[in-house]
Amino acid sequence: MSSPKPEIGFCGLGAMGFGMASNLVKQGYSVTGFDVAPQSLERFKKEGGIPASSLAESAEGKPYYVCMVATAAQAQSVLFEGDKGIVKALPKGATLLLCSTVPSAYAQSVSQQLKDVGRDDIFFIDSPVSGGAARAASGTLSIMAGGSDEALEKGKFLLQEMSDAKKLFIVKGGVGAGSNMKMVHQVLAAIQILATSEAFGLAARLGLDAREVRDKVVRSEAWSWMFENRSTRVLEEDYFPGVSALTIILKDVGIITSTARLHNFPTPLSSIAEQVYFSGLAQGFGPNDDAGMVRMYYPDPVTKVNSTLPKEDASSKLNLVVCMLVGIHLCAAAESISFAKHVGLPLDQLYELAVDAAGGSIMFQECGKQMIEDLKGGESTLVASTGRRLDSIVQDMLAAVEEAQKTKCPMYLASGSLSLLLMARRGGREASAASVIDVWRV
Amino acid sequence: MSSPKPEIGFCGLGAMGFGMASNLVKQGYSVTGFDVAPQSLERFKKEGGIPASSLAESAEGKPYYVCMVATAAQAQSVLFEGDKGIVKALPKGATLLLCSTVPSAYAQSVSQQLKDVGRDDIFFIDSPVSGGAARAASGTLSIMAGGSDEALEKGKFLLQEMSDAKKLFIVKGGVGAGSNMKMVHQVLAAIQILATSEAFGLAARLGLDAREVRDKVVRSEAWSWMFENRSTRVLEEDYFPGVSALTIILKDVGIITSTARLHNFPTPLSSIAEQVYFSGLAQGFGPNDDAGMVRMYYPDPVTKVNSTLPKEDASSKLNLVVCMLVGIHLCAAAESISFAKHVGLPLDQLYELAVDAAGGSIMFQECGKQMIEDLKGGESTLVASTGRRLDSIVQDMLAAVEEAQKTKCPMYLASGSLSLLLMARRGGREASAASVIDVWRV
Repeated sequence: MSSPKPEIGFCGLGAMGFGMASNLVKQGYSVTGFDVAPQSLERFKKEGGIPASSLAESAEGKPYYVCMVATAAQAQSVLFEGDKGIVKALPKGATLLLCSTVPSAYAQSVSQQLKDVGRDDIFFIDSPVSGGAARAASGTLSIMAGGSDEALEKGKFLLQEMSDAKKLFIVKGGVGAGSNMKMVHQVLAAIQILATSEAFGLAARLGLDAREVRDKVVRSEAWSWMFENRSTRVLEEDYFPGVSALTIILKDVGIITSTARLHNFPTPLSSIAEQVYFSGLAQGFGPNDDAGMVRMYYPDPVTKVNSTLPKEDASSKLNLVVCMLVGIHLCAAAESISFAKHVGLPLDQLYELAVDAAGGSIMFQECGKQMIEDLKGGESTLVASTGRRLDSIVQDMLAAVEEAQKTKCPMYLASGSLSLLLMARRGGREASAASVIDVWRV
Repeated sequence: MSSPKPEIGFCGLGAMGFGMASNLVKQGYSVTGFDVAPQSLERFKKEGGIPASSLAESAEGKPYYVCMVATAAQAQSVLFEGDKGIVKALPKGATLLLCSTVPSAYAQSVSQQLKDVGRDDIFFIDSPVSGGAARAASGTLSIMAGGSDEALEKGKFLLQEMSDAKKLFIVKGGVGAGSNMKMVHQVLAAIQILATSEAFGLAARLGLDAREVRDKVVRSEAWSWMFENRSTRVLEEDYFPGVSALTIILKDVGIITSTARLHNFPTPLSSIAEQVYFSGLAQGFGPNDDAGMVRMYYPDPVTKVNSTLPKEDASSKLNLVVCMLVGIHLCAAAESISFAKHVGLPLDQLYELAVDAAGGSIMFQECGKQMIEDLKGGESTLVASTGRRLDSIVQDMLAAVEEAQKTKCPMYLASGSLSLLLMARRGGREASAASVIDVWRV
């Protein structure tokens, strides 16, 4: 852009929003930001931003606006709250980016509300982000954006400023498609975050050394981005406040299950994860890092387990932990992909996005592609020409859950996954691991 | 029997066994009993029983023997423990009743072990019981008995002495069939015990009066024997020690899930219940009454909820609790019946047994029959000519889970059931409620 950079309004200077807005300042934009917390405004000023004293002030005369509040309820309030809201204050033909993680139905309702209040001159983009505070600050987020062609054309430069070049995903399907893409990615995230805790809980009850568990899993087909990321915090008991609060993933999983209900679509594993998260909330773990959910499975620090198992015994038990994660991750991949198909998302794009993001896992990488090809074909023709067979995953999972039962360890996701894997076996003994996706075929 | 009554040996004078053995004494039998607890022997003597000082003494010269210990591990120990076990001491041609609740595989292994030790002269009957301590003492238990025709003929009089005339079920299929029948009945019990707690937990979070919840549910299609029975203890917080310990139902559900794994059969709801029970165990609730599981859903006494809801609001929320139980009970019926079919049990007998026992529910009564007819037909032809449609149950369940989510109440069984109900909807909008059983068709 050789012409002077346009002014940008910004609302929501929290962990993510602050980094995003500050990055735009660094890129040479004049950014007027608003937040309900005065200290955030003060900090923003020090970064070169312009603090606004009201929502209206942050929006007046700004041709571009980024809304990065925490929830749909907050977005509704800041966008449309009577005379004081952002929408009322934006100039004609402004471009509005909603970067919060919200249900797609809410994003679509914003389009409708803009019409209802006579402001469909505003170019609206539904563009949730992913990647954490550090990537927000460096302008290298993943962004999943949906909107009209016109809106996307107008807003693209801004989306590009905030995202990594390879991680800006323009999702076909208009407003709502961005939120849906984020949602199906979070299916993987929500399940795999909890699977990490479940794995460490089981490992502790089996008498395994937590560090050895980590080392083994990250070098195995049980690897997931979430396991590798969260396991560091588990080993350090770094939950207070930690990096990513339980309440955040609980909000995201709530979007998954409520949207699934809206579509009459089953999300059995996400639903199980949500219930365990609710139980964690009831234990007071809400503000703690989500890695602290391991305490739902093992009350003491898992690193305190003094492993005295003979080497061979430890090795076979470690293997059960690997098997258990593999089974869960396989089902998570199937739940994410089939839900994506159900809401009409482009599946190849989901694959490209998730395989290299926080939802990534070896199982998603290895079986996700085959699941997608299968769904495109319309009916199950999955035979294991290459890769693992469902039967082998089932046998491993049976052994893992058998052993877990002896330790009296609650295995919400593992036993839930085993049920799904067993249900999927109508495909016969030759079926590929990817054929588990048939269970979600409604 | 006009001839003198035969001598009976008895082992395991716990809550159930003491009543059973004492009842046999009252019926005029000479009963020689053994237990590891001296005070039980003392008490038994006062009831007119003959205390034995060893296992061998309780068995020597006894043509009939009843083993009523708590677990398969205990049974293995008392039956076969070297020179001191019951089997070694029993006279040639004795009849041995194993009344403990054990996996059918264990019951079958007893037959094999009798052969292996050269004692297949013993007539062995696999005959678990149900009904609680009071009915044990009055000789009106439910009994599910499997064995060879010869063994059943020899032991029948004894089974009749211990059971209600209408509740002695001779189950076709030989040794193991009795245990399997008890197991599939416990599918209903295990799910419906926890459903009671889940319902009261949700009701409390919705701000409902617990007594009104009880009154409403027991007069509705959400009725279950377990709800009616356990709700009394919930209202009185009568958990210490209560009547039926969490560890007992946890043992039974462990038999369900481990046998299901052996058969590669999915028992998703029983598995969910087991995990929540494990979490309850980790909270220290093991020795408490299983009705105390309500504390997993609502930490304070549910009777302390001071309901201030307007009458209409309370009524619609009460209705959600009813809907939630209806959905769970429907799925429990399907899981029990389909598992029974899978292990080859006579389904009409299961129906007759369970409809009038602790596993009974209105949903089992109303939809169980249709499920059984459907399974006999071999493939799904279920159309809702009469009775409820699956679609209507799904809509109700969606509303209940939606509302529960707002209260942040963990709804393990309800959300698990909703997933199963949604998976079952391949049958189309006209399908009957009973068609949910298709999900278990593996």
